[in-house]
Amino acid sequence: MSSSPAESRVWAVILAGGVGSRFWPVSTPGRPKQLLPLASERPLIADTVARIAPLVPAERIRVVTAPRLAGPIREAVPELPPESLLLEPRARGTAPALAWAAHEIARAEPGAVLVSLHADHAIEPAEAFRGRLAELAVLAAREERLFTIGAVPTRPETGFGYIRVGEPLVPALGVCAVADFVEKPDRDTAREYLRSGGYLWNTGIFLWRVDVFLSELADHTPEIATRIPLLDAGRVAEFFEAVPMLSVDEGLLERSERVAVAEATFGWDDVGSWDAVGRTRPTDGAGNVAVGDAHLVDAERCIVWAEDGPVVVFGGQDLVAVRARGITFVAPRERTPELKELLARLPERLREGVEE
Amino acid sequence: MSSSPAESRVWAVILAGGVGSRFWPVSTPGRPKQLLPLASERPLIADTVARIAPLVPAERIRVVTAPRLAGPIREAVPELPPESLLLEPRARGTAPALAWAAHEIARAEPGAVLVSLHADHAIEPAEAFRGRLAELAVLAAREERLFTIGAVPTRPETGFGYIRVGEPLVPALGVCAVADFVEKPDRDTAREYLRSGGYLWNTGIFLWRVDVFLSELADHTPEIATRIPLLDAGRVAEFFEAVPMLSVDEGLLERSERVAVAEATFGWDDVGSWDAVGRTRPTDGAGNVAVGDAHLVDAERCIVWAEDGPVVVFGGQDLVAVRARGITFVAPRERTPELKELLARLPERLREGVEE
Repeated sequence: MSSSPAESRVWAVILAGGVGSRFWPVSTPGRPKQLLPLASERPLIADTVARIAPLVPAERIRVVTAPRLAGPIREAVPELPPESLLLEPRARGTAPALAWAAHEIARAEPGAVLVSLHADHAIEPAEAFRGRLAELAVLAAREERLFTIGAVPTRPETGFGYIRVGEPLVPALGVCAVADFVEKPDRDTAREYLRSGGYLWNTGIFLWRVDVFLSELADHTPEIATRIPLLDAGRVAEFFEAVPMLSVDEGLLERSERVAVAEATFGWDDVGSWDAVGRTRPTDGAGNVAVGDAHLVDAERCIVWAEDGPVVVFGGQDLVAVRARGITFVAPRERTPELKELLARLPERLREGVEE
Repeated sequence: MSSSPAESRVWAVILAGGVGSRFWPVSTPGRPKQLLPLASERPLIADTVARIAPLVPAERIRVVTAPRLAGPIREAVPELPPESLLLEPRARGTAPALAWAAHEIARAEPGAVLVSLHADHAIEPAEAFRGRLAELAVLAAREERLFTIGAVPTRPETGFGYIRVGEPLVPALGVCAVADFVEKPDRDTAREYLRSGGYLWNTGIFLWRVDVFLSELADHTPEIATRIPLLDAGRVAEFFEAVPMLSVDEGLLERSERVAVAEATFGWDDVGSWDAVGRTRPTDGAGNVAVGDAHLVDAERCIVWAEDGPVVVFGGQDLVAVRARGITFVAPRERTPELKELLARLPERLREGVEE
């Protein structure tokens, strides 16, 4: 089963543990964002698997998620074999999740190239996405680097982290050093990033050889690396008890000297709000998104989600109208990124089933 | 029981037969507009009875309505004695309804002054309304005239009929001849009416002595007057079979020479659309109307009706958001006067329970 780096095969890890209160009242801890059809008629995780499948066969896909989501995820992606699911005993962020997944894959194929994806992103077109991953996988197989994908900003988005691009490393492939990871900016800063052109959206999509990743982790992330022997011993629950809550960005990428960023050649969105659904789901001639028993008459650029009886929108513009779980929610699209702040102002009983 | 005109007592007839599809999805034939709390926390018909009660005691109030509404109306206005309800065997418009009511009242008190009200109007303040009716009732008791009330337009309303005001008849009381009844105008004409000042809204509120009304009916409305003997004989169902569908405006007021118009000294609205509820129901500091389990955060001038689970409106302006009978309806307020046109464009199943 083992292979030299030169003949590394590509494996995919799909991070699918997210909870997500951004799609209230539709989303719940038992049905988070990745299980909602926010970019097509099927759940985002099914889009994610279908998108990578021509490049990575099902038996080389791993999905890291919470035990409570195992059933719904199996239902959403029945093509994955049972061993695909890695159920985290507790959620400790992306660094422990990717360490576990890399460790598992390394046992099967120590020189494997791992592509780390999120279950809840919208990406188009799929062909460009796979083509880009395929060429970067070849690079990752021979370079001892941690590759991140950066998307070219198309608007002054304040909901994403950014990557400040450093000097070119592989100009022919659009791969550069990372000068800096920067936090979600305010509106003016986001406008400046967009104008200056030296910044990319941090997509959270990564490629690396599992041996390179585990070696970098050993060098930079002792809080996780020192607990890897627990995984060697099959003591997964103890590993997740022992490690701190840590993101791979903070725990490794911001510490390592081997990080590179590759510009995306495809459209990417993390579908962070109801408003984003107007960009990610197909729209009618008037720019509307209609899900379920939705009826739009003279409406423009509205997002209507009708799960629980018909929803009729007459003459509105740029509105979100949702009915789900017995709750009706109406807002201008531009306010929906503030949904968490809204929820904090509602009575407790309306927030039932919502987690941070 | 009989009295001379000089000592006429005031009786009230409340027309409460309307169906109303203007408050879809809340209103139904079994719960039309007059049974909805559109101007206060109680149904419009309860407002109507409470408003007139200090002037006209319950035993001199008659409510003309459909048999199917008898139960809900008794429940809404339990203070009325059972004999108050006049149940029309079939709806034939306001002319037959008022002829029947006048005939019934004339049997008890031939010279009574009848005030004809609609069950579904919003009127404020009640004191001004009663004061105006009281002084006009004195006038109606001694003048052989049919008095209509005209409200001073406050906006270029296209949803009401108008009265063109003629020469003064009783200047001290603001009573004039009627030059013309005019149909609902288009927007430009309504603006001109508002600007010119010679026009009043036709409120459909009338005052007259029952003997004067029946005599005018005999002179001008043979299609009804010739059937009055059926009422004398107690054959009410046959009367309603025999008469044509006819409004009192068309059947008598536009034909009689004895019509006068009295300017209203109170605010009046016929609550013809969801938009109107923003004028007739009390609002919060931001101009919002919230009915039921409604939650408004950063919303302005919105009308939210939550009958069937909570409705949350976040950040919207000038919106109507309604949930009732399993249906969610969202529209900008300004589009709600077109609700009938909208309904015609919806699938049949969504219009269930709606009548013209």
